[in-house]
Amino acid sequence: MIEIIDTTSDARARMANLRCRGHTIGFVPTMGALHDGHLSLIERADRDNDRVVVSIFVNPTQYDDPEDLDSYPRSLAADTNRAAAAGADFIFQPAFNDLYHDDYRFRITETGFSRELEGAHRQGHFDGVLTVVLKLLNIVGADRAYFGDKDWQQQKLVRDMTKAFFHRTEIIGCPIVRETDGLAMSSRNVHLTAADRARAPELHRILSGGGPIEAMRRQLAEVGFTVDYVERLDDRIVGAVRLGKVRLIDNVES
Amino acid sequence: MIEIIDTTSDARARMANLRCRGHTIGFVPTMGALHDGHLSLIERADRDNDRVVVSIFVNPTQYDDPEDLDSYPRSLAADTNRAAAAGADFIFQPAFNDLYHDDYRFRITETGFSRELEGAHRQGHFDGVLTVVLKLLNIVGADRAYFGDKDWQQQKLVRDMTKAFFHRTEIIGCPIVRETDGLAMSSRNVHLTAADRARAPELHRILSGGGPIEAMRRQLAEVGFTVDYVERLDDRIVGAVRLGKVRLIDNVES
Repeated sequence: MIEIIDTTSDARARMANLRCRGHTIGFVPTMGALHDGHLSLIERADRDNDRVVVSIFVNPTQYDDPEDLDSYPRSLAADTNRAAAAGADFIFQPAFNDLYHDDYRFRITETGFSRELEGAHRQGHFDGVLTVVLKLLNIVGADRAYFGDKDWQQQKLVRDMTKAFFHRTEIIGCPIVRETDGLAMSSRNVHLTAADRARAPELHRILSGGGPIEAMRRQLAEVGFTVDYVERLDDRIVGAVRLGKVRLIDNVES
Repeated sequence: MIEIIDTTSDARARMANLRCRGHTIGFVPTMGALHDGHLSLIERADRDNDRVVVSIFVNPTQYDDPEDLDSYPRSLAADTNRAAAAGADFIFQPAFNDLYHDDYRFRITETGFSRELEGAHRQGHFDGVLTVVLKLLNIVGADRAYFGDKDWQQQKLVRDMTKAFFHRTEIIGCPIVRETDGLAMSSRNVHLTAADRARAPELHRILSGGGPIEAMRRQLAEVGFTVDYVERLDDRIVGAVRLGKVRLIDNVES
């Protein structure tokens, strides 16, 4: 039976109790609107750990665009059922004033890589992401936390942050889950018009197609995307594009 | 028998082992040059906890003045003996490249109170303080950490930070230890010339004298201090002055 935890104090007490009894804890932070990508993280966490906590919190501090924040899909009842079916034991859904009782006075900043790629296109985005993740990691005190490969830069920054601060939680990356036509699953895909939804899989197809980065940018523009960036990063090619008001990101092994 | 720990990985392993065996851990972060003020923190930590860790690390990221950093007194052998006599079980003295393997890419910033008082006079000071403290708190995983009341603003910011990030360590404040003439103990006092050392206790005497803040500022200037600030903060009057190249801070209940 899945349990809902609404407050940070309750979450800390419950998790401390689990740790005392020797249970390992897997943690999957989400903003809700759970799709099969999230469920794959929960399933993996369930295989690796005794107990699984899924947080649902739409984090305002990582949004520079109020419209994007307001339109982010919310669906708690469906999310709870899906998370439970995938193996979650707890849903943690804190209120903003509880999680940010300091009113975001204290924050994590990263002075290099967070300013590139996504960070260059979304002012303050990674400060908000890193700050909320560190709060949540401390509250849950998990052994392992699971992040999708889709947000490749985010995953890398979160992992580096936990190492820089010598945090106990291990960051585990999990493969991108795609629709049958190749589109990476994302809560934002529901906002695509029918025409844009039909075009969206071209992002993955073109990134996977090989050849020079510059040619990929050109092909994406030809298909109708506004290209924010396409870059090589580690062993990946990462890209971000816009279709109307919807922003899509993806990456593939290069 | 006191033990010296030189690396972050060794410290984490040793402390995790202590916690597993049910020992409580008290932590006293220092920059070395231990005086009776530090020793009072160690003694208090020894009364409250099963094991006591003292870190010695002169933290470059909190210095905007390279000369202040270079001249900070260093005395490891004497420090170790004093800490042991006061009840410390471990000295933790990490190297910069170990503690800052991220090269200070990741940092804690505070957007309000840290910019006032000390923060207004020492650029980036509290970013460096908060960042190193969070690293050390995570490495040691103490139940309680001890900070002197002398650095009143620092103690308040560190406590607020641990609450903002839901950190497990409780921050304990301890009273200022003074020389018999009233001068607050500080590692920097050794740099005072004989004449300035004779004048230095006037800071405490004037802050304790009551009356309006503006009158205190005037009296301090008359005695020969360069006044950085005197302000009311919580139930305290806090002040910072300079005598030649030496900066003194102090505070008293108001």
